[in-house]
Amino acid sequence: MRIDIVTLFPEFFTSPLQCSLLGRAIAGGVCSVAITNPRDFAADRYRTVDDTPYGGGAGMVLKPEPLFAAVESLPVLEPRAVILLTPQGQSLKQPLLRSLAADYAQLVLLCGHYEGVDERVRAHLATHEISLGDFVLTGGEIPALALIDGVVRLLPGTVGNRASLASESFEDNLLEYPQYTRPANFRGWQVPEVLLSGHHAQIARWRREQQLARTHERRPDLQPPEA
Amino acid sequence: MRIDIVTLFPEFFTSPLQCSLLGRAIAGGVCSVAITNPRDFAADRYRTVDDTPYGGGAGMVLKPEPLFAAVESLPVLEPRAVILLTPQGQSLKQPLLRSLAADYAQLVLLCGHYEGVDERVRAHLATHEISLGDFVLTGGEIPALALIDGVVRLLPGTVGNRASLASESFEDNLLEYPQYTRPANFRGWQVPEVLLSGHHAQIARWRREQQLARTHERRPDLQPPEA
Repeated sequence: MRIDIVTLFPEFFTSPLQCSLLGRAIAGGVCSVAITNPRDFAADRYRTVDDTPYGGGAGMVLKPEPLFAAVESLPVLEPRAVILLTPQGQSLKQPLLRSLAADYAQLVLLCGHYEGVDERVRAHLATHEISLGDFVLTGGEIPALALIDGVVRLLPGTVGNRASLASESFEDNLLEYPQYTRPANFRGWQVPEVLLSGHHAQIARWRREQQLARTHERRPDLQPPEA
Repeated sequence: MRIDIVTLFPEFFTSPLQCSLLGRAIAGGVCSVAITNPRDFAADRYRTVDDTPYGGGAGMVLKPEPLFAAVESLPVLEPRAVILLTPQGQSLKQPLLRSLAADYAQLVLLCGHYEGVDERVRAHLATHEISLGDFVLTGGEIPALALIDGVVRLLPGTVGNRASLASESFEDNLLEYPQYTRPANFRGWQVPEVLLSGHHAQIARWRREQQLARTHERRPDLQPPEA
């Protein structure tokens, strides 16, 4: 997979893309990530990328020309998604990450000022609008990073142990069960007896009960699968 | 405000914390950010921070001792929140960001393996559990960054124009209205006539209608305030 980040802050991505799973995935050829700065496509001598909003109001709006020109400068791999990160978009959820990981050869991520991108970018350049959640950030850079991390870990060749992908949160609309590791007694807080029993069926039953109880208590809005 | 990040990947944060609004806020003294690595608090000679789960299963679980010791090494400013970033937590929303920005002198952010942190950390170390959304990432680092960005922009002294904070998405449970800037005609796509009219009351009415229509169409789950 090829990922293109279109951002006014290319230097933001330097250390996150070198680090941990993402750095290994890029180094190992699982995906490639390229960064393009719309400022390099601004037409005037001041390299202007934003301007005041028509109709008045606070803040600056990202102009359409530099974003269109930046995207049009990129190589095209089909199928391709051009994703505007915006609080107006579809909320990011695990099934959307799975679809992005499985169905596209290229993701182009447009990071705007989070509060002001010219409407014609949404209407005529983006194929998807995705929101990280119902909160406001300064820009699309952190949402882009979240999307990349969530997609790349699903690509073949990234996560060492595929079993851990299948059993994790949201893959079946249930929260995870409680996890414990050594020591069995930490400051008087004991690991539940059943986990030390070696009795696999009982452990599986306890974990399922914990998942259902925890999901019911914390996230009654999630719809668990029929038993 | 003091923010402490407890992470196994300190180098992840290097460039994001230098960049853009966050870098300016830190340089300007609006907040301070310190990073602590639990690996520095591992007790054994191999500096082990994770181990296999009791009861079996895929993946590794972050051990309790290094996380407790890392947090206990930090200075304490009250009121303080110790936040575990985890998909099991309360979903991050704008009112939660506002509360974190207004009500605390210190935020301690615990970035775990996103799928496995010993339950005793949740139960006895964290005061809050926060989830970025219903999706899985490799770790808590990107959620921590999102939380920091969302909180810091709300701190006094950060965002130049306070009016832009009041009018933005989710502050009144409505999505933003469409924004346009120059040129008025871009590739044949025109800016709506009303925005060029200079008629402030008509512009305000059009924007409100657009907000309501867009929220109704895209996010019927949001509850707008009574008219």
